[in-house]
Amino acid sequence: MYTLSQLQARIDAEIKNASYKTDPERLYEPIEYILGMGGKRLRPALVLLACNMFSDSIESAVSPALAIEIFHNFTLVHDDMMDHADMRRGVPTVHKKWDYNTGILSGDAMSILAYKYLVNTRPEVLSRVLDTFSKTALEVCEGQQYDMDFELRNDVTVSEYLKMIELKTAVLLAGSLKIGAIIGGATEKDYNLLYEFGRLIGLAFQLQDDYLDTYGDQAVFGKKIGGDILCNKKTFLLISAINAANNEDLSVLNGWISDKSAIPEEKIEAVTNFYNKYNISELSRKTINELYEKAKEALHSLSTYPKKTGFLEELAEGIMKRNH
Amino acid sequence: MYTLSQLQARIDAEIKNASYKTDPERLYEPIEYILGMGGKRLRPALVLLACNMFSDSIESAVSPALAIEIFHNFTLVHDDMMDHADMRRGVPTVHKKWDYNTGILSGDAMSILAYKYLVNTRPEVLSRVLDTFSKTALEVCEGQQYDMDFELRNDVTVSEYLKMIELKTAVLLAGSLKIGAIIGGATEKDYNLLYEFGRLIGLAFQLQDDYLDTYGDQAVFGKKIGGDILCNKKTFLLISAINAANNEDLSVLNGWISDKSAIPEEKIEAVTNFYNKYNISELSRKTINELYEKAKEALHSLSTYPKKTGFLEELAEGIMKRNH
Repeated sequence: MYTLSQLQARIDAEIKNASYKTDPERLYEPIEYILGMGGKRLRPALVLLACNMFSDSIESAVSPALAIEIFHNFTLVHDDMMDHADMRRGVPTVHKKWDYNTGILSGDAMSILAYKYLVNTRPEVLSRVLDTFSKTALEVCEGQQYDMDFELRNDVTVSEYLKMIELKTAVLLAGSLKIGAIIGGATEKDYNLLYEFGRLIGLAFQLQDDYLDTYGDQAVFGKKIGGDILCNKKTFLLISAINAANNEDLSVLNGWISDKSAIPEEKIEAVTNFYNKYNISELSRKTINELYEKAKEALHSLSTYPKKTGFLEELAEGIMKRNH
Repeated sequence: MYTLSQLQARIDAEIKNASYKTDPERLYEPIEYILGMGGKRLRPALVLLACNMFSDSIESAVSPALAIEIFHNFTLVHDDMMDHADMRRGVPTVHKKWDYNTGILSGDAMSILAYKYLVNTRPEVLSRVLDTFSKTALEVCEGQQYDMDFELRNDVTVSEYLKMIELKTAVLLAGSLKIGAIIGGATEKDYNLLYEFGRLIGLAFQLQDDYLDTYGDQAVFGKKIGGDILCNKKTFLLISAINAANNEDLSVLNGWISDKSAIPEEKIEAVTNFYNKYNISELSRKTINELYEKAKEALHSLSTYPKKTGFLEELAEGIMKRNH
């Protein structure tokens, strides 16, 4: 079997060598730009990895893997516009480098390009691959909508939050594995187990993100600790704290949330103290650990187990233990 | 065979009865809104009509026909944003009724929904239908990009303009006919002829639009004559006039184009006089007529001719002779 990093390198090479149309320049140049920004290429590598678990050849999964990467980058272009993000990976986002219209239209072209790449696979599995992809892609849009909706709400529950990150983040990892497995010839039971594994580690990944933003080691984490607290981001930590707090604490917490002139360090410390008082850190670790255990269970139920599952076990463990 | 208006009514009913997901509301409500605005449903009706030319049953073309209509409306949502259009069919556009983010994301969801509907057809033709659709959809994006590019250029040639309207407008009519014919079981020769017919009448339709905006009868045309002249829209008429004008006339014409304080009636009259001087009206009629004749030729080369081609002949004639 290929290792995950071998597959990531393969995807990187495929993207570099892909020849997109060049005309009109203003439509295709931003597509090359965003795809050329790099990134871990995790999702497409998972397509290939899942295929490789059931098939020695991964060639018929390469084009669908690129489709997933193109789709993912399409969502980045449009999400950056919706979130008014100016920078990505240290360079200007597409709508900043060019303009809003370019962001809209290049993104649109990428969503179609994704399907063009997706259909280049084994005809016998085409219809199932398409159904999985479209369902997943639509869910990613739904997740982004919930995320934007939640910014305007103060009564988001933990379960609503988990549903949102499932749609926005987890299903694309899950769908990538499922599509790869389908192409590799997996049974329905196996590809659904891989989907479940992807969904669970996707959730764990996002919860770990939330956790590290408050409890990470700044030197390792790479960005400033407490960023989520400062911008009142409705993370697992904040939502859990709001749910757990008694009335008195809740009103103080809400005071910090609405205080626009709070001193950053003081706000971070105060909110973190609330998290500590209500054991939100432990709740977070416990939830992540449960997801990790369930994800492992899904892997262990695969027909190939204990063969071919090693790289995914490592991936899950890596996500659980990652500190940046 | 079903008549075009029967098929348009069928599509209208299908769209009314379709049950889109309702949650998240902010994602799906705008989709129902734009699809519910009405319109002629010409493109999806052409899918059904072309299918019906080769098959008594049109049922396996209904879902792909809806896909075309959803895709078309997706382009309207995003084009209205790019063109800063506030109104469509007498009601606010999606980004005006809601906001830009809603316009972006609902549009994105529609582009995926289109594929969800598209794949619901005969498995034997799925791959060809998908290829045709993706190629066409990408070309529509390219056409929109060229259209935006041309706004900033003063040296657009007639052939560039024709290429732009072919991509932006004609290929979707052509692709609709081709997809319907493929589903109906047409031979490659027949579905390519129908594509060619659609491409030609699509071009003729746009040129007729350009023509009527200057030479239409205001009472019949429904909107004010000369709108294109006032906003310096690079239509077939203006581009042809710029190409034909001698140096002296060109400099006067450019004067009118750059004069921001011109009195509307005077500008319309002056530019129309240039058109008249260079016989642009006749050039326009001649070009439209040539397209019409070629479109008819394509129809007459169909294996079914003279059977089953009546409605399309009427459609082509209607476009050529329409005055609104």
